[in-house]
Amino acid sequence: MKLSHRITHLTGGGSDGWGVFYRARRMISEGIAVVELTIGEHDIPTHPSILAAMNDSAVGGHTGYAMVPGTALLRDTVAARVQTRTGVPTTRDNVLITPGGQAALFAAHAAACNAGDTALYLDPYYATYPGTIRGVGAVAKAVQTHAGDAFQPRASEIDAAAEGAVSLLINSPNNPTGVVYSRETLEGIAEVCKKRDLWLISDEVYDTQVWEGEHISPRALPDMAERTLVVGSMSKSHAMTGSRCGWIVAPAEVTEHLINLATHTTYGVPGFIQDAASFALSAGRELEDEISEPFRRRRALATEILGAQNAVTMIPSQGAMYLMLDVRATGLTGEAFANALLDTHHIAVMPGESFGKAAAGHVRVAMTIDDDAFANALRTLCSFAAVLSDQRENA
Amino acid sequence: MKLSHRITHLTGGGSDGWGVFYRARRMISEGIAVVELTIGEHDIPTHPSILAAMNDSAVGGHTGYAMVPGTALLRDTVAARVQTRTGVPTTRDNVLITPGGQAALFAAHAAACNAGDTALYLDPYYATYPGTIRGVGAVAKAVQTHAGDAFQPRASEIDAAAEGAVSLLINSPNNPTGVVYSRETLEGIAEVCKKRDLWLISDEVYDTQVWEGEHISPRALPDMAERTLVVGSMSKSHAMTGSRCGWIVAPAEVTEHLINLATHTTYGVPGFIQDAASFALSAGRELEDEISEPFRRRRALATEILGAQNAVTMIPSQGAMYLMLDVRATGLTGEAFANALLDTHHIAVMPGESFGKAAAGHVRVAMTIDDDAFANALRTLCSFAAVLSDQRENA
Repeated sequence: MKLSHRITHLTGGGSDGWGVFYRARRMISEGIAVVELTIGEHDIPTHPSILAAMNDSAVGGHTGYAMVPGTALLRDTVAARVQTRTGVPTTRDNVLITPGGQAALFAAHAAACNAGDTALYLDPYYATYPGTIRGVGAVAKAVQTHAGDAFQPRASEIDAAAEGAVSLLINSPNNPTGVVYSRETLEGIAEVCKKRDLWLISDEVYDTQVWEGEHISPRALPDMAERTLVVGSMSKSHAMTGSRCGWIVAPAEVTEHLINLATHTTYGVPGFIQDAASFALSAGRELEDEISEPFRRRRALATEILGAQNAVTMIPSQGAMYLMLDVRATGLTGEAFANALLDTHHIAVMPGESFGKAAAGHVRVAMTIDDDAFANALRTLCSFAAVLSDQRENA
Repeated sequence: MKLSHRITHLTGGGSDGWGVFYRARRMISEGIAVVELTIGEHDIPTHPSILAAMNDSAVGGHTGYAMVPGTALLRDTVAARVQTRTGVPTTRDNVLITPGGQAALFAAHAAACNAGDTALYLDPYYATYPGTIRGVGAVAKAVQTHAGDAFQPRASEIDAAAEGAVSLLINSPNNPTGVVYSRETLEGIAEVCKKRDLWLISDEVYDTQVWEGEHISPRALPDMAERTLVVGSMSKSHAMTGSRCGWIVAPAEVTEHLINLATHTTYGVPGFIQDAASFALSAGRELEDEISEPFRRRRALATEILGAQNAVTMIPSQGAMYLMLDVRATGLTGEAFANALLDTHHIAVMPGESFGKAAAGHVRVAMTIDDDAFANALRTLCSFAAVLSDQRENA
């Protein structure tokens, strides 16, 4: 039986650098103590108060179909939060609640792209981006960013790639690089979007994890609200990855169509999860800070540890729960380094190559284990890189 | 800004007969006591034992990302249930867990159809069917069934429509008609699928609500497992509509691709909801019977009430939580009758026209209120139809 081209060509095929991740999982299942620094999963579960709110809602009877656009309470709560953070007037009519940020990314591209259209994304990138674009039948086109620019995208290079494209997907604070886009970067991107008439799909799921500078939503830049689709989520800000609750903030006339799409793709989000999310967001910055604090602390630790050696260079880490480390001095690719580190020290990190071409020769470290173990693993990684670099120099 | 054709053309436009539904909602919000017999929502909340299992799982720490294909436990539990019910060997490799049956319908069509392909569905139909097909960029083509056949589809008419089509969507027990497809009907459909090389997408979410005859899954018919994608859900069988938990049962090589699609569209289903679903399914037939019992009871009531009059004819109701009533003797369309009934008696039912052309002159009654109120509403509906028919005869 023949399957659709769409589903059989979602992923690019060939090695994608995720071999290290799966090898680490296998080693763990065989009983080997692997230090896992691969994926963006909090080392704490969802806060008990949030789970209590969820249970209260469910036991209280909120177990039937929720309205497809989201509950009025959660839509209002998200709108108020966005308005407070960006200054852009935002109401529930701008908000569709989705079953997670990934569903929001998919819906945003489904709204922006016809089959065959070109959709831009920036390299290095979060693993699902090109497949999400292909999933709506569009052509995924990467625009490289550069380690030498600390992976801040260049507007000129986006512009050069934008001929015939309909959308651009960005992510700040950035996974995998930990970079927060500067105002200058975002203003440059906004100009290109206006000039080229692009939808800007802005994945802002790490917006509470900013260690330096400030998070700027491009929706707040002049004349950008009308062409920006913001993707948000409870996953990272509230350690609710498993609850699958996110949203799109869009112009009201787009939201109408997005609701219609949601009716046909997911039919809403559990009401008790939405009530839990409303509770969590209403707890305000204090709870968000409590949840982001471990990453802030570990990033400070990392800055200290990395600053005391020369074998590994850290891309300036301004946000999100990751560090991007340049290991090119070892002479190895990111993938070879990650494999060697896993074999020699049972420490698992992601090869930069897993996230595209631009981060080749790097590894991404997720700051998702307790401080002491994290610091030890990072010191071991640096020493290991130093040994490899020395061997290379002496070879 | 220009949106994709896909999202702006999801629904057909024009009146779709849902005006009655929205008018009833408005009247209720204005404080008018409307008897609501429109949509397929249980009048009981999710069973407390299922909610307790969900809370235990969440508080126990199952709050991080669940594996995208579904938990091993739920996939195994669904596979075992399907195997027991159909006799077809089924393992977790045949099962993808989805955030609800609607997401499964969407994924199944995304797997089967390329953009521009023709996908068949049967009229009358559940409201989202044509939009789901359009949502994957395919062309939705209806095949009429006939009130005179009690809406059992004719294989010959499907065959005549199948030239160039890639898939056929069926639903038994059927929403909106309450009909359960006979073995003969399903064998005829299977022959057409094999002759025309169609994927058969079989929506079986009402499989626990069978009042007469038996539910037959076409996956159990000879040589059909390889071309059948079965859509299932916890919504109707376990009064878990709001939990958004469903699945696709498919050939293992298709499941691989469906998992890949799920990674890019939804990224899994909450682990604590999957644990609740595993618990609910493990409770077996006893719990399912407890949940379907009110509909069985009300359907028996309806048979009695309808049998005692001549103004309204009931399509033989063999399953699901709906009755399809022929009101053509009143001389009104289903929509005009439903509007008049709402105005005169504050009883809200769905016009048959909401579900396509084939059920014109009918209304669908959801058996989703308590027995006494249900019986009273049905008696009122019949008397009202009798008055209208008399007026017509005497006119």
